[in-house]
Amino acid sequence: MMVIMKSGHSQEEMDQILSRLNEIGLKGHQIVGVERTVIAVVGSIYPELADELETMDGVDSTVPISSPYKLAGRETKPEPTVVKIGDVEIGSGRTVYIAGPCAVESEEQIMETARAVREAGAQLLRGGAFKPRTSPYSFRGLGEEGLLLLEQAGKSVGMPIVTEVMSVREVDLVAQHADVLQIGTRNAQNFMLLEEAGRTGKPVLLKRGLASTIEDWVLAAEYILNTGNPNVILCERGIRTFETATRNTMDINAIALVKQISHLPLIADPSHGTGKWSLVKPVALASIVAGADGVIVEVHPNPDHALSDGAQSLNFKRFRELIEASRVIGDAIGRPLWPAAAEAAPA
Amino acid sequence: MMVIMKSGHSQEEMDQILSRLNEIGLKGHQIVGVERTVIAVVGSIYPELADELETMDGVDSTVPISSPYKLAGRETKPEPTVVKIGDVEIGSGRTVYIAGPCAVESEEQIMETARAVREAGAQLLRGGAFKPRTSPYSFRGLGEEGLLLLEQAGKSVGMPIVTEVMSVREVDLVAQHADVLQIGTRNAQNFMLLEEAGRTGKPVLLKRGLASTIEDWVLAAEYILNTGNPNVILCERGIRTFETATRNTMDINAIALVKQISHLPLIADPSHGTGKWSLVKPVALASIVAGADGVIVEVHPNPDHALSDGAQSLNFKRFRELIEASRVIGDAIGRPLWPAAAEAAPA
Amino acid sequence: MMVIMKSGHSQEEMDQILSRLNEIGLKGHQIVGVERTVIAVVGSIYPELADELETMDGVDSTVPISSPYKLAGRETKPEPTVVKIGDVEIGSGRTVYIAGPCAVESEEQIMETARAVREAGAQLLRGGAFKPRTSPYSFRGLGEEGLLLLEQAGKSVGMPIVTEVMSVREVDLVAQHADVLQIGTRNAQNFMLLEEAGRTGKPVLLKRGLASTIEDWVLAAEYILNTGNPNVILCERGIRTFETATRNTMDINAIALVKQISHLPLIADPSHGTGKWSLVKPVALASIVAGADGVIVEVHPNPDHALSDGAQSLNFKRFRELIEASRVIGDAIGRPLWPAAAEAAPA
Amino acid sequence: MMVIMKSGHSQEEMDQILSRLNEIGLKGHQIVGVERTVIAVVGSIYPELADELETMDGVDSTVPISSPYKLAGRETKPEPTVVKIGDVEIGSGRTVYIAGPCAVESEEQIMETARAVREAGAQLLRGGAFKPRTSPYSFRGLGEEGLLLLEQAGKSVGMPIVTEVMSVREVDLVAQHADVLQIGTRNAQNFMLLEEAGRTGKPVLLKRGLASTIEDWVLAAEYILNTGNPNVILCERGIRTFETATRNTMDINAIALVKQISHLPLIADPSHGTGKWSLVKPVALASIVAGADGVIVEVHPNPDHALSDGAQSLNFKRFRELIEASRVIGDAIGRPLWPAAAEAAPA
Repeated sequence: MMVIMKSGHSQEEMDQILSRLNEIGLKGHQIVGVERTVIAVVGSIYPELADELETMDGVDSTVPISSPYKLAGRETKPEPTVVKIGDVEIGSGRTVYIAGPCAVESEEQIMETARAVREAGAQLLRGGAFKPRTSPYSFRGLGEEGLLLLEQAGKSVGMPIVTEVMSVREVDLVAQHADVLQIGTRNAQNFMLLEEAGRTGKPVLLKRGLASTIEDWVLAAEYILNTGNPNVILCERGIRTFETATRNTMDINAIALVKQISHLPLIADPSHGTGKWSLVKPVALASIVAGADGVIVEVHPNPDHALSDGAQSLNFKRFRELIEASRVIGDAIGRPLWPAAAEAAPA
Repeated sequence: MMVIMKSGHSQEEMDQILSRLNEIGLKGHQIVGVERTVIAVVGSIYPELADELETMDGVDSTVPISSPYKLAGRETKPEPTVVKIGDVEIGSGRTVYIAGPCAVESEEQIMETARAVREAGAQLLRGGAFKPRTSPYSFRGLGEEGLLLLEQAGKSVGMPIVTEVMSVREVDLVAQHADVLQIGTRNAQNFMLLEEAGRTGKPVLLKRGLASTIEDWVLAAEYILNTGNPNVILCERGIRTFETATRNTMDINAIALVKQISHLPLIADPSHGTGKWSLVKPVALASIVAGADGVIVEVHPNPDHALSDGAQSLNFKRFRELIEASRVIGDAIGRPLWPAAAEAAPA
Repeated sequence: MMVIMKSGHSQEEMDQILSRLNEIGLKGHQIVGVERTVIAVVGSIYPELADELETMDGVDSTVPISSPYKLAGRETKPEPTVVKIGDVEIGSGRTVYIAGPCAVESEEQIMETARAVREAGAQLLRGGAFKPRTSPYSFRGLGEEGLLLLEQAGKSVGMPIVTEVMSVREVDLVAQHADVLQIGTRNAQNFMLLEEAGRTGKPVLLKRGLASTIEDWVLAAEYILNTGNPNVILCERGIRTFETATRNTMDINAIALVKQISHLPLIADPSHGTGKWSLVKPVALASIVAGADGVIVEVHPNPDHALSDGAQSLNFKRFRELIEASRVIGDAIGRPLWPAAAEAAPA
Repeated sequence: MMVIMKSGHSQEEMDQILSRLNEIGLKGHQIVGVERTVIAVVGSIYPELADELETMDGVDSTVPISSPYKLAGRETKPEPTVVKIGDVEIGSGRTVYIAGPCAVESEEQIMETARAVREAGAQLLRGGAFKPRTSPYSFRGLGEEGLLLLEQAGKSVGMPIVTEVMSVREVDLVAQHADVLQIGTRNAQNFMLLEEAGRTGKPVLLKRGLASTIEDWVLAAEYILNTGNPNVILCERGIRTFETATRNTMDINAIALVKQISHLPLIADPSHGTGKWSLVKPVALASIVAGADGVIVEVHPNPDHALSDGAQSLNFKRFRELIEASRVIGDAIGRPLWPAAAEAAPA
């Protein structure tokens, strides 16, 4: 850490800082510049130190130097992490598709969708049972019933399932039935939930928070990794910016950058990232090209009758076109699609 | 709701929409403009309708018209809500101060702070026992032990206490010991926690999310109100923007606007809103003038030895100066300070 | 336009609005909903109307309905605009590369770069002569001398040139020597400059403003189109958000969306969009896949000795790799590279 | 400047950096930490250095240390700058009001407004002659005619006038007639305009850009100061954020912070900062309390007939109430109103 002193600080202020550093077992090297003096702090620095030093007289600011990640960074583990879900691998260099409705609405709807996305080439089935909604007056999912319908649909078509868990209270229930626990954007810094989900040992799909910086997001992954569970899949789903023409702003830079700084697999969610079905295809393909290991996408038999997020859902035909286009691009860039569930185990 | 049609939509598309509206018991009035045609939808509209209609062919977009708030809005209840905590009222037209350390660190620290903020003029004592931290490697609070120390300090000086609850699992525990349950910015849309906190019937201090629009924030309050608990106190604590010179951007507009659209009391948190102790005083005073019913502020005996958020904490002397300045301004604008705990019940 | 009335408005307020609409030659249709009343305004609406009506008593807000674009929208002109610069076409369905140094520094530097980017496959040469810099103490370009060096380099290798014009004063000078006038992000709403550049009749490359919504940006293009100059090339170069790990946030959604709503050609600037050379390649490729008609990229012989924006510049080798990867992807998706300057007219 | 090395950099990479620093006359001190190595660079650092070093192999990032401001910072000039306009002083410790219509529309309108704001207690008269508008189809001001009407109105009531200049071409014209040149938010980084306005020697009112950080904004002031013109008045007018309930987000933190880091006077523009007349009063008062030296506010005889920005304009009665409330608060906090034009020179 570097401590940047105010111009015109006193010798006494400097001495107090050096003695405080000494008191906590760190070493401070003073460097006198043309305009400012800085102190380079060497030793085992703890996260609170910046705050402590910034309140001391004479200090202008502090600058961290070491990476904040102990487990998620490439510095610790250069080779990519591959997360296995059944026979499917995420992060292996082949592109994976997770598809299904925003919310499970009925047995018929989820079964029909499961068959369609499997046929089209998806590897995993998604569907919401517990739905976080901005308004308490919106449809909030079928709850446990939805979870069981999703499980049954997955088993019936031979696809592992991904579903969201909204609070520590449901973690055990969801972990009993789902293959991957999804943490939603509004819980992206619900640290107790992160830890509880981590402790199940199941793969965790961690969405980026609406206002999470890349650093916040990867640190949230640290909470899960820190429980001893290495199976974290990051998911870029757009951030909140001033632009209102799209629901969120898909951060394509983040996809490319996170793949450079972290070994964790990363997937893209163009449905939430754009909020418009007409943008899902171009943004999904762009995400793959930028480095995403897979795509999670909302698919619904009748998007105009969906109980949730219809405007961003693909119908079956559009989903097949997306998979087809992904296959072409994936082959061209050497990141082909993972074998479809339908191929792996023909019905 | 207004449905705005694409220019060049077909009559068939229009008919399908009108028949869909009919199917769900709504009436659609077609209005042909010079450039566009719109459909005014009349009837009992449910939140999902916009999504449904936006996926239909020929539709460009939809525009909501009615207020999304059923319980929090002035339209429903024009007169201000006053939340009572012991003898203190928030929202009564008098300014209230909630003060204390970011985190409870030890009996000595919380007792010393409790006495100091009481003497200075605060009415409620705050302190974190369960602390959400961006990094899992930061100090995360003393947990239940911290909660008990805070309760004891509050009782000892005769001040009600405010503390954060981080997950549904701790709601009962915290509700047993605290007078006000605080929901933090990272849980501002943790809907299960909102409902669980609401069900205790205790006053809930609801911080605005880092990326919550005013509408998101007031809808989060609806989750609590919808449990039958009217005791919600909103708290503006800054939003995340591109500006990095301050930790967050205090949204002074939101303070003034929310007081116009909602009857709920609102307090300001200039400590988190600015992240710098030197800005706490001017921004606290500005918030009062803009309409805040109170201020929550971090105070620590030795900010430079604080285990959390030292850089934004006031020491005792600066807190006394803040209260003094608030008294002068409060008297000038006809919103005087609520009688201090110290006055109400001299030790 | 829809005028949304406050709940509880009076009949008198309604009458005043209807009579005001009458006064200015518009018709107002009153629609009484369950919660709110709205007025649908039909007729030739002018931009100021919203502001006028929003100040009238009883009005809650207004909602525009017609598209704000008269010239740039697909509604007016469904087929794509192709801008010709010498023999090169932008918007034709083939991908174009504009490459060169951020700033022209010397004859040797620009000549060496021109030869290298031509050889690698670029079609146009870029280089800054007049440089907008955040600090007045940074290198601000060679001015007219740089412009002449750039022109000479372009002629020598047979490539049209693109360069920025910073004020109305330099428009004539730059238009005399350059093939395309670039409007930078900080001048994206410098309306006088937009019009003056438009009046030259030369193609104008219009960067999106740091804080421009998509609507702001396309309306800025209207200023140019409105001068009778149809040769506008839009350029997405990242917007300012809360994320600081990258210099800007490349708005990949905007690339896909603008291609849907506007007929104008659009190119991507991954150098400024990311601020990091290591992200330029993935984000350039993603932009092409999302729909961009071309890419503008900073290339420098020795990025670590560049007088401006070195950190985001590619060296020659990395630029060749980028072109190679673009060729592979372009061929796969049916949007091949435009023939390179080198092929079109071998030296 | 500090250069932070990648973990695992080679000795050769370190040597190259040190020799590069040597080559340009700087000294590099190597500091080996537990996780990372940094180089402290001492000497006369130029703005481009960061970019140069960040492209060198082995470098992770760089961190600036000295203040970027040479002229605007308190480090250079601790005492506040007072800008004199006629008999009025801005930055003197007394609050100043600048009021008038968004756009000059007619002789009658500007004369009526001038008389009203003078009577109410304003010291300066504002009015737009050249208007930057997002759409080319909006009313763009009366141009030179508006400027002359404004000048005549100012003379007639004895108030100095403030008006916007939109391009270098109009600087001389506007400087001939106006007492203060205003630079609008969309030209906040139009560096040629900043310098040209600076060279007139007239006071310049510099609005913050929609997406300008505090550092960008104060550096823009450096462009003006650097021409030898010390008469810069900063103006906070809200920044663009994700919040859409208000037109912009007034950055109250910035008001308090800029007064701490810079000696320049600063005024607040609550009309643009909020976009709603009902928020103008609370936010104006909050800005004064946070440290603003004055307020610029839009006042119009009939806001609902205004040709521009009616929704955020006060009528005469509301402006008088604002001045009255400002007087009460100003007196309470020891920053009374500057004597009104009406008092100074009774008509």
